[in-house]
Amino acid sequence: MAEKGEIIELIALLRLKRDEDVAEKLEEMAVQDIADAMGELEPEERLGVLRALPVERQTDTFSYLTSGLQREVIDNLEQTEARRVLAELVPDDRTAFLENLEPEDLENFLKLLRPEDLKQSLKLLGYPEESMGRLMTPRFVAVRPSWTVARALDHIRHEAHRGETINFVFVTDERGHLLDAVKLKDFILARQDAKVESLMDEEFYSIQAAADREEGVQVIQRYDINTLAVTDKNGVLLGIVTVDDIMDVAEQETTEDFQKLGGTGTLNVSLREATPGFLYRKRIGWLMILVLVNLVSGLSIAMFEGAIEAVIALVFFLPLIIASSGNAGSQSATLMVRALATGDVELKDWLRLWGKEFSVALGLGVTMGLAVSLIGLWRGGPELGMELAMVVGFAMLAVVIMGAMLGMLLPFILQRFNMDPATASTPLITSVADVLGILIYFSIASAILTLPSPVA
Amino acid sequence: MAEKGEIIELIALLRLKRDEDVAEKLEEMAVQDIADAMGELEPEERLGVLRALPVERQTDTFSYLTSGLQREVIDNLEQTEARRVLAELVPDDRTAFLENLEPEDLENFLKLLRPEDLKQSLKLLGYPEESMGRLMTPRFVAVRPSWTVARALDHIRHEAHRGETINFVFVTDERGHLLDAVKLKDFILARQDAKVESLMDEEFYSIQAAADREEGVQVIQRYDINTLAVTDKNGVLLGIVTVDDIMDVAEQETTEDFQKLGGTGTLNVSLREATPGFLYRKRIGWLMILVLVNLVSGLSIAMFEGAIEAVIALVFFLPLIIASSGNAGSQSATLMVRALATGDVELKDWLRLWGKEFSVALGLGVTMGLAVSLIGLWRGGPELGMELAMVVGFAMLAVVIMGAMLGMLLPFILQRFNMDPATASTPLITSVADVLGILIYFSIASAILTLPSPVA
Repeated sequence: MAEKGEIIELIALLRLKRDEDVAEKLEEMAVQDIADAMGELEPEERLGVLRALPVERQTDTFSYLTSGLQREVIDNLEQTEARRVLAELVPDDRTAFLENLEPEDLENFLKLLRPEDLKQSLKLLGYPEESMGRLMTPRFVAVRPSWTVARALDHIRHEAHRGETINFVFVTDERGHLLDAVKLKDFILARQDAKVESLMDEEFYSIQAAADREEGVQVIQRYDINTLAVTDKNGVLLGIVTVDDIMDVAEQETTEDFQKLGGTGTLNVSLREATPGFLYRKRIGWLMILVLVNLVSGLSIAMFEGAIEAVIALVFFLPLIIASSGNAGSQSATLMVRALATGDVELKDWLRLWGKEFSVALGLGVTMGLAVSLIGLWRGGPELGMELAMVVGFAMLAVVIMGAMLGMLLPFILQRFNMDPATASTPLITSVADVLGILIYFSIASAILTLPSPVA
Repeated sequence: MAEKGEIIELIALLRLKRDEDVAEKLEEMAVQDIADAMGELEPEERLGVLRALPVERQTDTFSYLTSGLQREVIDNLEQTEARRVLAELVPDDRTAFLENLEPEDLENFLKLLRPEDLKQSLKLLGYPEESMGRLMTPRFVAVRPSWTVARALDHIRHEAHRGETINFVFVTDERGHLLDAVKLKDFILARQDAKVESLMDEEFYSIQAAADREEGVQVIQRYDINTLAVTDKNGVLLGIVTVDDIMDVAEQETTEDFQKLGGTGTLNVSLREATPGFLYRKRIGWLMILVLVNLVSGLSIAMFEGAIEAVIALVFFLPLIIASSGNAGSQSATLMVRALATGDVELKDWLRLWGKEFSVALGLGVTMGLAVSLIGLWRGGPELGMELAMVVGFAMLAVVIMGAMLGMLLPFILQRFNMDPATASTPLITSVADVLGILIYFSIASAILTLPSPVA
């Protein structure tokens, strides 16, 4: 983990201008921790730290900065320095930097690239956003089936400095079609004069460059592999994506799910770095939409104002009833959204889950209905007790079932129409459950208590 | 991904009793997919599939079954078969199987283990639950600094079948202290007569066996490593944990966060497999606690029954005001819980974030307050309009700020007292925000509208 002590020490040394000690300290630190420390510094100091690093660590450190800081640093560097950093970034990190730029800036930065890097970057940026193509690096080691292990190992040694990872060596035909992925370990265990094809088992996993990165997460997670091959639609090997990049994607995707479920939409930036104005804009939209939903709640209540005036005790139970409905709905929506995201449940399971959720909700509703009807008995006193108990008991039963069904089905319906199930945010479920809860509650009350009929 | 076609085909072949085709189909399928398919079958068929597999794939497939199915399968196997499956499980998968058993069953299963496996399993189970020790496998390849690369490679070749992964080779001293972790690739690139110590850079990551597995997730995620060394407190290498196991842990931990945030507590089993009774028990607890909170809402309203009877229009705005407070609170709680979980924000940041959240909430509150006061103007009509607009506008401003502050601070406070911040579930935040919202709303109404004073 980020050693807080290390970061504080580094800052102290920097501010004391003890350059030699700074260099020594930086040598001890991991690039991830240096990048973290840079986040705590002033822009000028950040530049100082970067320049105090040996050339090859500059780029590594740069790749771990947040996109906001990457932009700031590169803007403040001399052009020759910026060129060097961009040239030395590995292709997937370069794509990550470039894809966060505004279109007008992108052009300026592309001008800084070497011709071969420019060509490669344009190709990688040509894949759809959030696709595997955007994540992959075209640096991999490929051998032919007809080679001997000795020749393959020579080739691996030669290419190892270029390749990002060689835990897997890929076997391709002369036209680049992926034939197999073989563990480096197998090359070491094999006899030197054996043919590469004798190591092949044709058990390998690959994904198309245009595929969504979430698919890549699922393949790597499911099949426990370290390196996933990315091909074009004809099976020609284009690049590889390593598990560490996939873990970062998985974390981001999960964060997006959390944020959607919490009703903020996706931020796509660190909460630390988000400005208040940005957070305001992200959050106000959903809140205002929910205001509209809740206005319907108000209108529903207004319909029953006569009933409320006749039996003011009904208002006592109003927050309890509608909140319980929303709470049951939040529970089931959260369970469903997560289970859909991890692949634990799938669309085709909806009927089975609907049945299960219904029986759970029935149990929850009966328990809570009984509890609240006791309160109704007490609250209603001798004259109104029995009737009020019935009203609130049945209303609770009905709204809990309704809320749970809503929370369970909405994510499924969204998924069915290829929308993100997490859009069924808990605030949305709660607000819709409020409206329906009010209507159910007062309808039951009107039926049992023979109250003035609603005003439409 | 789980090929649905494959699974259906397998089931069809099984039911047609075409044993040869079943064997052939199984040969093509990945063990993960076979395990998945087994989940869709009847217990007898499951056993049939397992027995149709070659011995070494039986254990692999078994390790990918859910804990419920593992138990069922092992109970149905002959004792000799069960012994063999347990003997061939890799140590970390064996720990995972054993730790899910009830204490009385555990004893019976331990009896099936070979003496050396029993000793090892007891040792691994001796580490705290959810610790790195429970996840690790003691199978790793270690070499000495004084060896030549050639000798080390011989040793690696010899041990490779035992070792779970050899992407990293560990360098230890004669007493087992971990000195370094060197990539297998470096051994291949090095000259055969070079010493192992010439490959060492002493840049490696390790974690203690007693450490929480979430720490392991953070180290692997942060430093992009495939294999994490696990040591005792003296730095003696005990085992390794690979990134695929860590990804599974990360997924589980995130699922727990989702479930807590959604107000269900943690399930610890797949939603598909959870029985209705289990789901009921998990969910009813929180719902009943929330009923108590919501009862306070009811009591708060009852205090203001006089005010409501005097100005029944106040009830129209009640759901809108209290829901908005809960919605703003859900947004900020979700953002905070996730940011704390990913390490994006830390405890020490609370003051900075509090300031930021306050300014965001102020913006949200003003916008929503203005919107709702327009509705108040319309709803109140010529006599009451201005006053009602003021009441609902100010109330909205106040409750949105209150909700957002509550949602932001509660996770921090829980974390401060070493509780899981996700315990600040959105239903809890919503329900508490309801109570406070009602009090704020009617207090403001009483102040502005000069209504009957509350009945305590």
